[in-house]
Amino acid sequence: MKRIEGGICAIPGVRAAGAREGKYGVAIIAASGTAAGMFTTNKIRAAPLDVTAANLTISDGHLDGIIANAGCANAYTGVKGVDDARAMSRLLANFLNTDETNIAVASTGVIGRRMNMELIAKLFDQARAKLRNSPDASVEAAKAIMTTDTKVKEIAIEHQGVRVAGIVKGAGMIEPNLATMLCFLYTDVDMSSSSLKDCLAEAVKDSFNMLTIDGDMSTNDIVLLTATGAKKCNPETFQRILGYVCVELARMIAHDGEGASKYFETIVCGAKNEDDARVASKEVARSSLVKTAVYGADPNWGRIIAAIGRSGAEVSPLLISLSLEGSGSKVNLIEKGRSLDGMLDQARKIMKGNTIIIHIDLGVGNASARSFGCDLTHGYVDINADYTT
Amino acid sequence: MKRIEGGICAIPGVRAAGAREGKYGVAIIAASGTAAGMFTTNKIRAAPLDVTAANLTISDGHLDGIIANAGCANAYTGVKGVDDARAMSRLLANFLNTDETNIAVASTGVIGRRMNMELIAKLFDQARAKLRNSPDASVEAAKAIMTTDTKVKEIAIEHQGVRVAGIVKGAGMIEPNLATMLCFLYTDVDMSSSSLKDCLAEAVKDSFNMLTIDGDMSTNDIVLLTATGAKKCNPETFQRILGYVCVELARMIAHDGEGASKYFETIVCGAKNEDDARVASKEVARSSLVKTAVYGADPNWGRIIAAIGRSGAEVSPLLISLSLEGSGSKVNLIEKGRSLDGMLDQARKIMKGNTIIIHIDLGVGNASARSFGCDLTHGYVDINADYTT
Repeated sequence: MKRIEGGICAIPGVRAAGAREGKYGVAIIAASGTAAGMFTTNKIRAAPLDVTAANLTISDGHLDGIIANAGCANAYTGVKGVDDARAMSRLLANFLNTDETNIAVASTGVIGRRMNMELIAKLFDQARAKLRNSPDASVEAAKAIMTTDTKVKEIAIEHQGVRVAGIVKGAGMIEPNLATMLCFLYTDVDMSSSSLKDCLAEAVKDSFNMLTIDGDMSTNDIVLLTATGAKKCNPETFQRILGYVCVELARMIAHDGEGASKYFETIVCGAKNEDDARVASKEVARSSLVKTAVYGADPNWGRIIAAIGRSGAEVSPLLISLSLEGSGSKVNLIEKGRSLDGMLDQARKIMKGNTIIIHIDLGVGNASARSFGCDLTHGYVDINADYTT
Repeated sequence: MKRIEGGICAIPGVRAAGAREGKYGVAIIAASGTAAGMFTTNKIRAAPLDVTAANLTISDGHLDGIIANAGCANAYTGVKGVDDARAMSRLLANFLNTDETNIAVASTGVIGRRMNMELIAKLFDQARAKLRNSPDASVEAAKAIMTTDTKVKEIAIEHQGVRVAGIVKGAGMIEPNLATMLCFLYTDVDMSSSSLKDCLAEAVKDSFNMLTIDGDMSTNDIVLLTATGAKKCNPETFQRILGYVCVELARMIAHDGEGASKYFETIVCGAKNEDDARVASKEVARSSLVKTAVYGADPNWGRIIAAIGRSGAEVSPLLISLSLEGSGSKVNLIEKGRSLDGMLDQARKIMKGNTIIIHIDLGVGNASARSFGCDLTHGYVDINADYTT
């Protein structure tokens, strides 16, 4: 997998732009191709997601572009919200001279507030004047949809002659299930919309669905994948590249979690089945007590064990092994249920690093899973104690 | 329901005592009667709970006393942990001149550490010399098992001539399921062990099982109820008193949640069924984003709506109503899906108070539930970033 420059604009023909005013922003992306989307499973789903899901059905999995805004989630806004989301899709459709059902819409921001459509139109006008295929256009689009994000999150990969690229935003209200945040993926491969959907579901399962910042599943999570169709690629190769891209984007989100000072992965192996591995791994990543222990570099492994025990996975205390890895070293803390003496100093040293890997072997099977998370810090409390005011 | 003084020592014949040394403590309680217990459903369960569950089976639901310690959870400590828990039960059994299977054992503290049995014996000796029936003995026992708790949590109720009383500890790693924390309940009613168990299960369902501090279910949760048998009482009356006592104790725990500056209840009504009401209520109480919004007095009701939406309960956005109550006033924010304008200032005022009630009407049925929670603060992060070191 070779990383290349340019974000989503590394895909030939993809044009992007963004405009901001304070905490509000609009990003537009123009690229025609087969497309697939995944959406939050929250039963209260934002209007733009309803509109986009309908559009993808009507267009039979074809997209000409995406319009997304930050600052207002357009969630829990009733019929007016649907009208606003449709109006957004028309803005871009008219400009691209296509039907509004070939446009996807996404929003992120405060829930329950109405859209300021005048501001959207103004920012759209600024953006459309700049729509272009260039590396800084990808960055500009990624920036336009940031809320509490502190870093631009984009990636482009070239492998065996094909390219897959994506931008993503997300820092809080993150524990996706089936889809997540705003993530716009592009590729130059030639693939049907239904095959794209299968590949996307498979990739999301091991990336965004294994990500948790605060356990709070959003109303607005969306992942969209558009394939421009220039290159032939066998599906297995495409799946590998897409999987790689999604995992890297999920990592970027965890690194940029609200208030995060440290990033950690929880790798569970030896589980009875894949579901068990997933729930055990995510329960550790989600635990407020594990997250605060990571923040404080406190090797309080009992909290990890307690999380595994309540996860629902099949566990046998005497078969569990646990080790920590980071800063170039690795330390075993538990071997088949026996805690090893004299290891806590080394564990503390590892936990003082910025990246920690928690390895857990449940010892009851062969399945494994990995989750992506970050610590719980004073910064998280600061950001979220005073968000809307 | 009349509140009376004395904590568990308000029940005639109940003797208590406690001793502490730094963060370690031992509490003992002597009282003979029929008994029932409920335990954490965490699959990694602490040794003292295994011993107590076995003892209650062997003794056919009879207890003569309880010994509990703070500072070391005696969880994930293998066969040695079971030996230590048994040794603790023998200390009290020998002193009370009974069989060790008539004694319950409980522990709280750091997981994965071995018990310091010399210290336990020393603190036990100090405590047994003071064992007595007096109000300050109940407080002393409650204090002996505190960890990050900041307040003594005890209650005694007299109603229709019978008494129910309890002490409880718990401030973090709290989201029980089927049982919780260390809670020792006493009553003077005459009731079989199996009836006690039914009453306890019913009371726990609406109290401790609706309580969440940080979503982290413990390995050591235990609730024990002992009935000394002096008074006749019809089961419905006893159930009402016991339910009241358990709800009040759950409230005390939420009030004393780690780092908590505010307490809030989430009352869900109009749910399709009781399970839906419970999950919706707990998902709101558990949400890090709701908890930080409460901390910051930020009336960001979108976070409440998002939590309801992902809870799994049947919801229809246009049927939801939402109001906030506190500081002597109440404000409606959403009426059947319509957000009401101009209410946020009053909502913010209510949220600045120390106690907030979130009322949610799902509008799809008649079931209701109430949960008990607290805000997520800098204090929580402080306490948990540096717990074992």
